Amino acid sequence: MVYLTRIERFNAAHKLWVAAWSAEQNAAIFGKCSNKNWHGHNYTLYVTVKGKPDPMTGFVMDAKELSQLIKNIITDKLDHSNLNLDVDFIPKALQPTTENLVLLIWHELMPHLKNCQLHCIKLMETENIYAEYYGA
Amino acid sequence: MVYLTRIERFNAAHKLWVAAWSAEQNAAIFGKCSNKNWHGHNYTLYVTVKGKPDPMTGFVMDAKELSQLIKNIITDKLDHSNLNLDVDFIPKALQPTTENLVLLIWHELMPHLKNCQLHCIKLMETENIYAEYYGA
Amino acid sequence: MVYLTRIERFNAAHKLWVAAWSAEQNAAIFGKCSNKNWHGHNYTLYVTVKGKPDPMTGFVMDAKELSQLIKNIITDKLDHSNLNLDVDFIPKALQPTTENLVLLIWHELMPHLKNCQLHCIKLMETENIYAEYYGA
Amino acid sequence: MVYLTRIERFNAAHKLWVAAWSAEQNAAIFGKCSNKNWHGHNYTLYVTVKGKPDPMTGFVMDAKELSQLIKNIITDKLDHSNLNLDVDFIPKALQPTTENLVLLIWHELMPHLKNCQLHCIKLMETENIYAEYYGA
Amino acid sequence: MVYLTRIERFNAAHKLWVAAWSAEQNAAIFGKCSNKNWHGHNYTLYVTVKGKPDPMTGFVMDAKELSQLIKNIITDKLDHSNLNLDVDFIPKALQPTTENLVLLIWHELMPHLKNCQLHCIKLMETENIYAEYYGA
Amino acid sequence: MVYLTRIERFNAAHKLWVAAWSAEQNAAIFGKCSNKNWHGHNYTLYVTVKGKPDPMTGFVMDAKELSQLIKNIITDKLDHSNLNLDVDFIPKALQPTTENLVLLIWHELMPHLKNCQLHCIKLMETENIYAEYYGA
Repeated sequence: MVYLTRIERFNAAHKLWVAAWSAEQNAAIFGKCSNKNWHGHNYTLYVTVKGKPDPMTGFVMDAKELSQLIKNIITDKLDHSNLNLDVDFIPKALQPTTENLVLLIWHELMPHLKNCQLHCIKLMETENIYAEYYGA
Repeated sequence: MVYLTRIERFNAAHKLWVAAWSAEQNAAIFGKCSNKNWHGHNYTLYVTVKGKPDPMTGFVMDAKELSQLIKNIITDKLDHSNLNLDVDFIPKALQPTTENLVLLIWHELMPHLKNCQLHCIKLMETENIYAEYYGA
Repeated sequence: MVYLTRIERFNAAHKLWVAAWSAEQNAAIFGKCSNKNWHGHNYTLYVTVKGKPDPMTGFVMDAKELSQLIKNIITDKLDHSNLNLDVDFIPKALQPTTENLVLLIWHELMPHLKNCQLHCIKLMETENIYAEYYGA
Repeated sequence: MVYLTRIERFNAAHKLWVAAWSAEQNAAIFGKCSNKNWHGHNYTLYVTVKGKPDPMTGFVMDAKELSQLIKNIITDKLDHSNLNLDVDFIPKALQPTTENLVLLIWHELMPHLKNCQLHCIKLMETENIYAEYYGA
Repeated sequence: MVYLTRIERFNAAHKLWVAAWSAEQNAAIFGKCSNKNWHGHNYTLYVTVKGKPDPMTGFVMDAKELSQLIKNIITDKLDHSNLNLDVDFIPKALQPTTENLVLLIWHELMPHLKNCQLHCIKLMETENIYAEYYGA
Repeated sequence: MVYLTRIERFNAAHKLWVAAWSAEQNAAIFGKCSNKNWHGHNYTLYVTVKGKPDPMTGFVMDAKELSQLIKNIITDKLDHSNLNLDVDFIPKALQPTTENLVLLIWHELMPHLKNCQLHCIKLMETENIYAEYYGA
């Protein structure tokens, strides 16, 4: 089993805000992340698949195809978007935290992988914070 | 003359949108950057000052003081903000492009530097784009 | 289970030196790392915790709290310190190698994590060397 | 068990080309990677070993020795080489993809590790693609 | 005057080899860079233009247009190429060193810039070597 | 005129401490940098030379020779050293700040450059601080 990782990038706005809470509660829990006028990030997405390299091509999966798939299914929707408002696969009731995003991206991308398995979704939000999900 | 650079970071939302233009014109010129719901970036700010190192301390300027000054005057206002709406030193009539931001940050920071000169404001918006201003 | 990683940084001096050995033995084993006058590094610390994202906040753990905890318990003691002399949780009898540091940081930090589990301590000593510990 | 990683770098040329296929088939599958005149990369190699830190030295393995071993066995052969033509441990029948390279480097390096175990070979081909192999 | 930099990347093979010299002379001067079977690099290209930001758009030049121009004129030709054999604007008599490449890229790109001036071509060949040209 | 930069790295200990001052004064000015037991950094040194590329080799200066020269004259002395105690070209009366180090490295290296000119010494102390000197 060999693991292949493709990195893609997107830039997006978001805020952390629980509608059921007062502004004070949101500020107490989320701090500056609750700014009602939004803030944003350059996100770096790592998609890792696993499988046996094809004996002819040496590919677990063609990295160009993997890149195109990630763009079609995930980053074309996320790039230059508002993560709270614009993305069909992010439920309005969920906070767009890095932790929730790796779960959502996993479930969105997994059905589209044919000849290899999805192993990990990793998302870096700033140079100091990232989340990972391995499917369970 | 020795040049000293301090790097600070901030995360912000913005959009590029000329109010005098139609939505179609804005989309034609600014592409995805004109998303009405905003997008955002992790910005990296480089502030370069110049002067002679103090014979006693060896400092052109104390880098801790420079860091604190940049935070007080610039990045505390920009971090987790909306650059179009939230920042007193960004005029509403100006697009918050990287080019305009280096000009605005220069003029905001310069009056606060005492014993050394401001040499350059550099701002990195993504891993592929940055702007620089040297005061003229 | 989602994994959340917070990165913190500290700068420290150290040397590798076994008191029971002669200067020649220390030089033979540790090379330049045994310089009696010390050398130092910019260390990058990765702390990974795991858990289920809270349904309300979307957090495995609040990254700001995790950052503050790492600073209080670990990096405020390590930053601008001498790792052989200054740090209460580094036994004088142990070499402050990257491998020993990840073990020591794990045991120092673990008791302070409440609603999620510590998964990994990773410490980067130079751009070419890092160590990881997963608790067993 | 502590994991120690040493990073080494090499620069090499290669192409992806199945001799049994026509030029059209190679272009259809491998795209620009099939340029008959070669292209190349700066590769970054991560070698991770695991073991218990020696109670005296604090080393899982001396990182200088690990570096020297990787150079002797692997990167002195790969650096400034043509991966399709010049390297004794890369079979001519195999495509020098990142996936195949981590398998080949694993099997080449493993027999030379004495007092600790090889845990992972990771190879980064561009800033967006890497492969990993854990021995099974 | 504000400076705007766009970064693009390409991967290429090359060798350093003076046809008028013997293999021994080439090896003596160029070392492993003279491997007759080529080697290669991931190149990072920084293109800096300068001008006044447009009062309406805030752009010195639209960074998307600059990116597309660099791709059309420069990196589509260089990416996955052999720099000694495949590129129309690299004379066969010139060594494809980083120094010569910045000169050649400057002269190739400059005529295509309309409303702003080319300021600098910077090319990074490895994590340790880069060259810059400012037009004189 | 083309500019060629070679990057080298070294790890060292230092402290900032004016002997004529009390411990309180040193702490007030230098903060944690005045820890009497030292601290340290991974330093990154950028040496930029300028000249015309040789018509035969395409080199402003052979980057391998430049690397070897920097090692012989500068980084072999600085690596794994104590900058206050161990380095012949750092006067004991000067603080080993980044600003003073670029001045000292410039004057140490310049006499050894023959067929090209030294243009800039840049030294990065942490991921957030660097100094530059251009010879005047």
